[in-house]
Amino acid sequence: MCELLGMNCNVPTDICFSFRGFTLRGGRTGHHTDGFGIAFFEERGCRVFLDYEPSAGSPIAELIRNYPIKSTNVIAHIRKATVGETTLANCHPFQREMWGRNWIFAHNGNLENLPPLRQRYYRPVGTTDSEHAFCLILETLRERYPEPPGSTDLVRTIVEVTREIAGHGTFNYILSDGELMLVHCASQLHYIVRQAPFSHAHLVDDDLTVDFADLTTPDDRVSVIATQPLTDNETWTAMAPGELIVFKDGAPVAFPTRDLE
Amino acid sequence: MCELLGMNCNVPTDICFSFRGFTLRGGRTGHHTDGFGIAFFEERGCRVFLDYEPSAGSPIAELIRNYPIKSTNVIAHIRKATVGETTLANCHPFQREMWGRNWIFAHNGNLENLPPLRQRYYRPVGTTDSEHAFCLILETLRERYPEPPGSTDLVRTIVEVTREIAGHGTFNYILSDGELMLVHCASQLHYIVRQAPFSHAHLVDDDLTVDFADLTTPDDRVSVIATQPLTDNETWTAMAPGELIVFKDGAPVAFPTRDLE
Repeated sequence: MCELLGMNCNVPTDICFSFRGFTLRGGRTGHHTDGFGIAFFEERGCRVFLDYEPSAGSPIAELIRNYPIKSTNVIAHIRKATVGETTLANCHPFQREMWGRNWIFAHNGNLENLPPLRQRYYRPVGTTDSEHAFCLILETLRERYPEPPGSTDLVRTIVEVTREIAGHGTFNYILSDGELMLVHCASQLHYIVRQAPFSHAHLVDDDLTVDFADLTTPDDRVSVIATQPLTDNETWTAMAPGELIVFKDGAPVAFPTRDLE
Repeated sequence: MCELLGMNCNVPTDICFSFRGFTLRGGRTGHHTDGFGIAFFEERGCRVFLDYEPSAGSPIAELIRNYPIKSTNVIAHIRKATVGETTLANCHPFQREMWGRNWIFAHNGNLENLPPLRQRYYRPVGTTDSEHAFCLILETLRERYPEPPGSTDLVRTIVEVTREIAGHGTFNYILSDGELMLVHCASQLHYIVRQAPFSHAHLVDDDLTVDFADLTTPDDRVSVIATQPLTDNETWTAMAPGELIVFKDGAPVAFPTRDLE
């Protein structure tokens, strides 16, 4: 199994603190030793760092821990290979362009017997169930909407495909187009919304404390999503299985997703 | 203007030596100070490192100079912004998936009044003429070939689109799908094919010499393509304006591209 990390903010924020704890699970405090990846949106642009070295020892992960890239949407993944070889083509997060925007996706869980892809627009490059599922989401959106739809239609369609894919196994995922961050919980995902008044946070995986009050302005708002809570002195919210939350500008936004079941 | 660097090999090879000289042109020996990017193919997978910091001082470029990623196809670019803002979305190389493979593209030169994109399959994310040209190439291929064609048809179509785009300005580019590397010269590009017997090479941009005989086996073959020669003690071949060369397994391969003009 793998672990997921996401961050959605209203102002560009660096993820060094959370990423430090998270990547220690890749070979030191955890056993997710088959690579890692992290994607940073910066306005419409996106950069993805991938490595199949365990994240605890990867020079690329070390760079990310120390190089404060400020981003409003970040998706990271550490991998314990279950399906597909440990090759670069199978490393999350996956990236595609749709409607002139970058879309980024990372998944935790196993999926079996997924419906075949029509492959009109998107095909997997690697051999994972995860990239197949990502292509299913994008293909459905693209076939239904030649031009980008409004957020409500977008989210409704994603919920619909998610329900279908979730019937094939465990489908925890984080998906973003650089504006919205869609988070689906199948078995385990937690989140926290940090906003003023900011205070101290202490990592679970390392003896490191940060005082967010020193690093933020009163208007900042940051949501962090992770498979397991990354800090041990804050209250994280456990998502319910089957729940899909859309984050925007650092906080969950209401979409009538439950009505759609 | 920008500078391009490409490497195509028959066995995975690291580009640390060439990249060292190349990136010094990004702010130290050259004035290409608006970012850089480098893409490494590893089998079907691909990782792209981008930064809008000048490459001479970028922590990401420093990582690449010191972390020997072995790849059979590498495309790098250092940028002096002429069209489009200095944002991540405008950094080369650009990446898209087509037919289940990654395609990578970097361009040097200015293009004006390009034909509009039909946008059935690909749209630019940023605002550069370069990404527009890349999407034109892919869109034409995708419309003509729903399934991947043979190499001859592929190259013939790329040559055809290239001629059309080249009529709109200066179109030096490097394009790869991880197997073939297509290099088009509009104004300046040089290449060298290194094979046994290997010898010493000395950088133009730094006082650094490497003895490739120590690093290679007799069967290795590596082509390096660059806007300007990177070494001062080897013989680089200048490409002719209008010439398109296809590299595979470390050497130019013959396609009847001249017949197609």
